[in-house]
Amino acid sequence: MSKTSNKTVTKKIATKPRASATEGDDTAITAFALPPEPLEMAAYFKKCEEKLGFVPNVLKAYAFDNAKLSAFVAMYNDLMLAPSGLSKLEREMIAVAVSSHNRCYYCLVAHGAAVRGLSGDPALGELMAMNYRAARLSPRERAMLDFAVKLSAEPWSVEEADREALCRAGFGDRDIWDIAAVAGFFNMSNRIASATDMRPNSVYHCQAR
Amino acid sequence: MSKTSNKTVTKKIATKPRASATEGDDTAITAFALPPEPLEMAAYFKKCEEKLGFVPNVLKAYAFDNAKLSAFVAMYNDLMLAPSGLSKLEREMIAVAVSSHNRCYYCLVAHGAAVRGLSGDPALGELMAMNYRAARLSPRERAMLDFAVKLSAEPWSVEEADREALCRAGFGDRDIWDIAAVAGFFNMSNRIASATDMRPNSVYHCQAR
Amino acid sequence: MSKTSNKTVTKKIATKPRASATEGDDTAITAFALPPEPLEMAAYFKKCEEKLGFVPNVLKAYAFDNAKLSAFVAMYNDLMLAPSGLSKLEREMIAVAVSSHNRCYYCLVAHGAAVRGLSGDPALGELMAMNYRAARLSPRERAMLDFAVKLSAEPWSVEEADREALCRAGFGDRDIWDIAAVAGFFNMSNRIASATDMRPNSVYHCQAR
Amino acid sequence: MSKTSNKTVTKKIATKPRASATEGDDTAITAFALPPEPLEMAAYFKKCEEKLGFVPNVLKAYAFDNAKLSAFVAMYNDLMLAPSGLSKLEREMIAVAVSSHNRCYYCLVAHGAAVRGLSGDPALGELMAMNYRAARLSPRERAMLDFAVKLSAEPWSVEEADREALCRAGFGDRDIWDIAAVAGFFNMSNRIASATDMRPNSVYHCQAR
Amino acid sequence: MSKTSNKTVTKKIATKPRASATEGDDTAITAFALPPEPLEMAAYFKKCEEKLGFVPNVLKAYAFDNAKLSAFVAMYNDLMLAPSGLSKLEREMIAVAVSSHNRCYYCLVAHGAAVRGLSGDPALGELMAMNYRAARLSPRERAMLDFAVKLSAEPWSVEEADREALCRAGFGDRDIWDIAAVAGFFNMSNRIASATDMRPNSVYHCQAR
Amino acid sequence: MSKTSNKTVTKKIATKPRASATEGDDTAITAFALPPEPLEMAAYFKKCEEKLGFVPNVLKAYAFDNAKLSAFVAMYNDLMLAPSGLSKLEREMIAVAVSSHNRCYYCLVAHGAAVRGLSGDPALGELMAMNYRAARLSPRERAMLDFAVKLSAEPWSVEEADREALCRAGFGDRDIWDIAAVAGFFNMSNRIASATDMRPNSVYHCQAR
Repeated sequence: MSKTSNKTVTKKIATKPRASATEGDDTAITAFALPPEPLEMAAYFKKCEEKLGFVPNVLKAYAFDNAKLSAFVAMYNDLMLAPSGLSKLEREMIAVAVSSHNRCYYCLVAHGAAVRGLSGDPALGELMAMNYRAARLSPRERAMLDFAVKLSAEPWSVEEADREALCRAGFGDRDIWDIAAVAGFFNMSNRIASATDMRPNSVYHCQAR
Repeated sequence: MSKTSNKTVTKKIATKPRASATEGDDTAITAFALPPEPLEMAAYFKKCEEKLGFVPNVLKAYAFDNAKLSAFVAMYNDLMLAPSGLSKLEREMIAVAVSSHNRCYYCLVAHGAAVRGLSGDPALGELMAMNYRAARLSPRERAMLDFAVKLSAEPWSVEEADREALCRAGFGDRDIWDIAAVAGFFNMSNRIASATDMRPNSVYHCQAR
Repeated sequence: MSKTSNKTVTKKIATKPRASATEGDDTAITAFALPPEPLEMAAYFKKCEEKLGFVPNVLKAYAFDNAKLSAFVAMYNDLMLAPSGLSKLEREMIAVAVSSHNRCYYCLVAHGAAVRGLSGDPALGELMAMNYRAARLSPRERAMLDFAVKLSAEPWSVEEADREALCRAGFGDRDIWDIAAVAGFFNMSNRIASATDMRPNSVYHCQAR
Repeated sequence: MSKTSNKTVTKKIATKPRASATEGDDTAITAFALPPEPLEMAAYFKKCEEKLGFVPNVLKAYAFDNAKLSAFVAMYNDLMLAPSGLSKLEREMIAVAVSSHNRCYYCLVAHGAAVRGLSGDPALGELMAMNYRAARLSPRERAMLDFAVKLSAEPWSVEEADREALCRAGFGDRDIWDIAAVAGFFNMSNRIASATDMRPNSVYHCQAR
Repeated sequence: MSKTSNKTVTKKIATKPRASATEGDDTAITAFALPPEPLEMAAYFKKCEEKLGFVPNVLKAYAFDNAKLSAFVAMYNDLMLAPSGLSKLEREMIAVAVSSHNRCYYCLVAHGAAVRGLSGDPALGELMAMNYRAARLSPRERAMLDFAVKLSAEPWSVEEADREALCRAGFGDRDIWDIAAVAGFFNMSNRIASATDMRPNSVYHCQAR
Repeated sequence: MSKTSNKTVTKKIATKPRASATEGDDTAITAFALPPEPLEMAAYFKKCEEKLGFVPNVLKAYAFDNAKLSAFVAMYNDLMLAPSGLSKLEREMIAVAVSSHNRCYYCLVAHGAAVRGLSGDPALGELMAMNYRAARLSPRERAMLDFAVKLSAEPWSVEEADREALCRAGFGDRDIWDIAAVAGFFNMSNRIASATDMRPNSVYHCQAR
């Protein structure tokens, strides 16, 4: 250790304002330089613009290859939007709790906004991202998230007893499938986002606060 | 598994609105019933009201015993507010990154608000709570947080090489002490908050968004 | 502890032969009772039968819902079979190394067979399932698997330095995307298989030995 | 990241066949150059050749020192072959489940073959190496492996309640000793094999498939 | 690996006696060069000398800044010496069990001595430092340490069920606060000690043996 | 939480002195009731008495079966006492550092005493049991213990680079074997001791203080 340091604290030099922690998030969407294909999915992007006001960066990140983009969109839409015994809010809660386990910046931001919006309870979004165990939840919600997070943390030890806990909380076989499929999907997406340094649209940060 | 479930998803019964995930946070501050002492620190609480508009729940939680409350306040104020080679924002960034490692609801909410307020960059608060590695930080900030989080995760393996990495980033001995002391303090507070189910004032949630 | 036990070992009663460890794998494919939909994908299943001699159980498991089945098949085929800078064998090696990290019975059996078949080196399949670090691999293969397994184990800590290690091993941006996407996909599939107790077709066990 | 990579996947150059993942396993048995002693144990090696058709590489690895070789062989033979309340198959199942926890290439290959041979159920060998929790086992087998794997993963937390679970599954004190001793032995062997990069005889790979 | 090594063990050169493993512990108290302030707390140090025969190194380490030293001393004295439903020995047992989890050299030495002294049972001090689960403890002591160590290891998962286990062992709300506060305090101190390479007074090593 | 607790701390009832934390260690050596065999090894036990003044409890624990006892003694004596490039003290240091990783009460007590005795530096024994990283060690000692503890913690990731670090610290192939074999042996013994609740002779506690 340096022998010159002492109790007197270093005089702080007037510093220039720090750059934003999210600088470039809307322009340099991933660590990669992968030019988009002429968009067969242009119509889909346009629909996003109309419906959401923007195209989610994950879609732009996939736009270098239409086959990959369509497969992702088809799976995402089925899982998160199609009829299910789980409400859309419940599916988004799983998305955020799993993404919190994996500490995924992109998904926490994008799906945290979704939980805030669907629940009308902004603090619920925060709690899913921080520690779902601290939230005031129904027994059904708690059982669902316990399963999803255990499945994320140690999939090798998920067994019949874990499925039975979901049954006792009122979930049927199809519901358990859906919990597993949503938790599985975000274990995939979290990793693709981390591997590519995918950045969320900055608009998400202030949605539904 | 139930043999009656099938593909047809359960019909969703119109459900009553879910309770807030933070219900009771401003009234039932911990899991305990510890009545406050006649307040020698009343003046301090009054100052809080005047300065912040409210008394942070952690202080109310400690109010059952003046000796404990004063000791906590003295240490907190010295660490977070007294002169230091670390800016107040840097100290709050450590607070949140450590609390994220420990997934502490109280401290993430209260100190996340402080990071947002001090930096004027709301997303910086989010990033400290989600995964500090994903934030666009200066090398100095990154080195500081790497040390603080390693110290939280595996204190037994922090050694000279870790201190040297801080030196290379421009920190002196006294600065390293302060990084360690702030990181240590939140490793304490996080655990007291989790052990007692301490709830943050709900006003924090929307500060400096 | 029982006071009656002693050094004399318990006399072994002539036992009936133990049941197979894989009993029912070809008939009770998951823990769930989810009847298949009238198959729009019947043609696809028929093609499987013709090409592989059987329908992989994962497809039967998904057959309760055509939308889910098609989305899964579209994503799987693109990732594992479409043109890529990664050979099909490399993609299967990632599949097995990730599934080994997650200790997923279904995927280790099904994709272990694929590694054996594509490589003509049965022991390579074993090594991917046991510990890829013990295999004699090219530097390219090793870098690829190190990235995929780190991404599985601690996605929050994958950063630019990890991508640079892949660059140094000769991978381009699109290749890195593909490594991440395959690793991500099996982090999803492993969890769906574990959550549902999905059982592999027993035919895989002896393929390409 | 390289700016030159794009969607077009790299053209695959016709590659020379990859080397075997197990190249040299039968000739360079460890990472070390330790010449064998004039063999007092020659007779034992000869017996191996006659009985098994080959000398297990672990014995060759120990042959640089007769005292070490004899001590290892004496302990191994007592544990795995002497009379016990545990069948030989049960002892081999413990060997493989422990070696799977420790991801030991040598022991997984050699003792995986033993499980296949003794059980006549090749898939049982695979399942012990992949995830014993996914195998269809008797309650006795499951209790035995749960104890052995917990003892491998976190020996500091094995206590009376764990021994009682074995009692309830029908094991006596001497049986529990034997489970612990076999699990302990492979926690030793796994580490010696990993530390020395010990390679299994390639003949094991196809035994009893 | 070197090709020259062989079975013949390296001849041991007569070696000079090894230096003490604790060399400098009484003179170079931390890794830092932080000169003490003219001591307002001189009286306190003098009292230490009179009462203990020495000044604990942790106090000397803090002496570069009186505000920090007083805050530390005030909190320490309240927690460890003030009236509480926990005996002083119980508080020291928590200190050592937590410090064992965090493998903190300073605190294990200093507080191990305290456990030996207060209990008159030197082996109790050893057991707290090695593995509290192996000690013969009362159910009350065991419950207290289980809570303190879980709170150290995974604070995010401490919940109502953990508090209820303490209630069942006879602890009231104020007692649980004190367990949490002592456990929390040593999670702070352990980290400050590790971060600064703080060395315990060598006199502790032989106290109360 | 109980509503009756408050700030006033529970009045401490005059308590009877607590039982020793090591009660029964010299009489109930394990959790098991396994009567000793008529001792072929009586001579060996007698030699222990003469040389050490007592028979180590681990030998009494094994005395229910002479084959197991002899195999254990043969391996132990070869590893810890036979000629080696490692000094006896170095081998005992490995024993304690590994046993600290595994938090094994029996081995920490028995081999901690050996480190104290062989080194004449009682604090060295403590440091090996607490955190070897905090001890003032030679580079050779540090490299040796880093290897042994990594091999204990994550044997699957020990590779050529780890062996090379030992080479650079001056160890030859045979020395590395011995480090691995001693570390492996205590990974076995630690687990047998934990599985059986083996208790060390109380005489060890005060040896060589």
